[in-house]
Amino acid sequence: MNGKDFWINDAWDKEKGRSISIKIKSSLESCRSEFQQIDVYESECFGRLLALDNIIMLTEADEFAYHEMISHVALNVHPDPRRVLIIGGGDGGTAREVLKHDVEEVHLCEIDREVIRVSIKYFPTISTCFDDQRMKVVTDDGAEYIKGYKDFFDLVIVDSSDPIGPARVLFAEEFYNNIHDSLTEDGIAVTQSESMFYDKGLIKDLFVFNKRIFPIVRYFYTLVPTYPSGTIGFSFCSKKYDPVKDMHKKIIPDLRYYNYDIHKAAFMLPNFINQIVG
Amino acid sequence: MNGKDFWINDAWDKEKGRSISIKIKSSLESCRSEFQQIDVYESECFGRLLALDNIIMLTEADEFAYHEMISHVALNVHPDPRRVLIIGGGDGGTAREVLKHDVEEVHLCEIDREVIRVSIKYFPTISTCFDDQRMKVVTDDGAEYIKGYKDFFDLVIVDSSDPIGPARVLFAEEFYNNIHDSLTEDGIAVTQSESMFYDKGLIKDLFVFNKRIFPIVRYFYTLVPTYPSGTIGFSFCSKKYDPVKDMHKKIIPDLRYYNYDIHKAAFMLPNFINQIVG
Repeated sequence: MNGKDFWINDAWDKEKGRSISIKIKSSLESCRSEFQQIDVYESECFGRLLALDNIIMLTEADEFAYHEMISHVALNVHPDPRRVLIIGGGDGGTAREVLKHDVEEVHLCEIDREVIRVSIKYFPTISTCFDDQRMKVVTDDGAEYIKGYKDFFDLVIVDSSDPIGPARVLFAEEFYNNIHDSLTEDGIAVTQSESMFYDKGLIKDLFVFNKRIFPIVRYFYTLVPTYPSGTIGFSFCSKKYDPVKDMHKKIIPDLRYYNYDIHKAAFMLPNFINQIVG
Repeated sequence: MNGKDFWINDAWDKEKGRSISIKIKSSLESCRSEFQQIDVYESECFGRLLALDNIIMLTEADEFAYHEMISHVALNVHPDPRRVLIIGGGDGGTAREVLKHDVEEVHLCEIDREVIRVSIKYFPTISTCFDDQRMKVVTDDGAEYIKGYKDFFDLVIVDSSDPIGPARVLFAEEFYNNIHDSLTEDGIAVTQSESMFYDKGLIKDLFVFNKRIFPIVRYFYTLVPTYPSGTIGFSFCSKKYDPVKDMHKKIIPDLRYYNYDIHKAAFMLPNFINQIVG
């Protein structure tokens, strides 16, 4: 740091000639796990920030917009979600939101136990889930773990990093076939599916094979200022329920982003991406 | 440029400890007008880019998302918009969209004639409006120009830069009072109103006084990756028509962002901003 200004740039994005830059006040932790470089920073205007391999995973200031939307949309469509699997999501933010619902058990399968340790240590408002009796925390490869379950989960959430490094397999057709088989007959999967502006090719590939696997496949998005392009989307892959027509609303107080209007609005897309996923 | 990597950072944003960074291939023009520094760059991945006082105004890659939404929303609410005033918007992108509708006359009041010159020279796909017979182009201070019109415009669009430098007056209560008076009895104003994430204080101020001035005031947004936070919003200030209930749809082909679903969805806001504008 040395008194000189220090800024972090999102490494994945920067390769492509664009990047969000965030000014850092101090480094709180920098370590290398078996899988990746892990950094925690205190930033100038987004609170604490977690980076994996120099790619921004979350900041305290805007993580709610991501974690609420990856969770509450499907939880307000499925009439009675009992068993939930989260793949990735070692920071705990997605599980924190899922546990606001009346669920029975939440499996969290994170490949890198160091991410969980770091989140518990530095992100106490995000990692609240790890004390909850309904949690089953596993450190394993999610693409392998899911093979052990058939007709079991009501909801699978893939809260992955970008399709480089350990998360690459989480964007493959075989993995989505295994998600399908792990779900009950009216199960839903929600999977991190990148930016409609920057990742059209990836989204197109996901939609081509997912439309063969699931009867209902839709794209929806949220706004996250510290992610590339400021928006990130999700695939909504469903065996039975339509994400808008089949809402089963559950009252969840004190959310900062999610509400029933934004739930429906998040599926209304600009023409340029409708042409790809429509 | 000297063979070394050159990146532009949005100057307004950077002050606050965050910024979008865009890699530049070459500089096409750099000049100082009476009002501001004007730069045109060829960027690595967004096509050409216009910056005023080192603040990114537009890029060829994503300007459509801004210009379509600042224009077509109100034009699909007002049943018969004949006379339109654009304040700012010297690049011509907003007028290009307005002229896709069956309007009679479009006044474009840009304070800085150098912006118009540069856009005509370097942004031929954006500055198409300047050949249209329906255009009345004025180089003047919009805050003064509007005082000359009472009960005249069906639609006023304020396509301004940020509230520093020449655009500061365009965020003041007096200016909005004058907009109100320049509008016909069922007129609508749409004004650039910054980011719901980064400019909550400014948006709150705008809404406090606009709710005194206009019967209907709403906030809606679009997605623009090269603007701070990746999203920018607009105030919809209306004397008669509700932006969602009173749509009068006109068929406009070949748009890349706007459609009737996204029109409605753009007014559905996350809780944290609903609390401010609701």
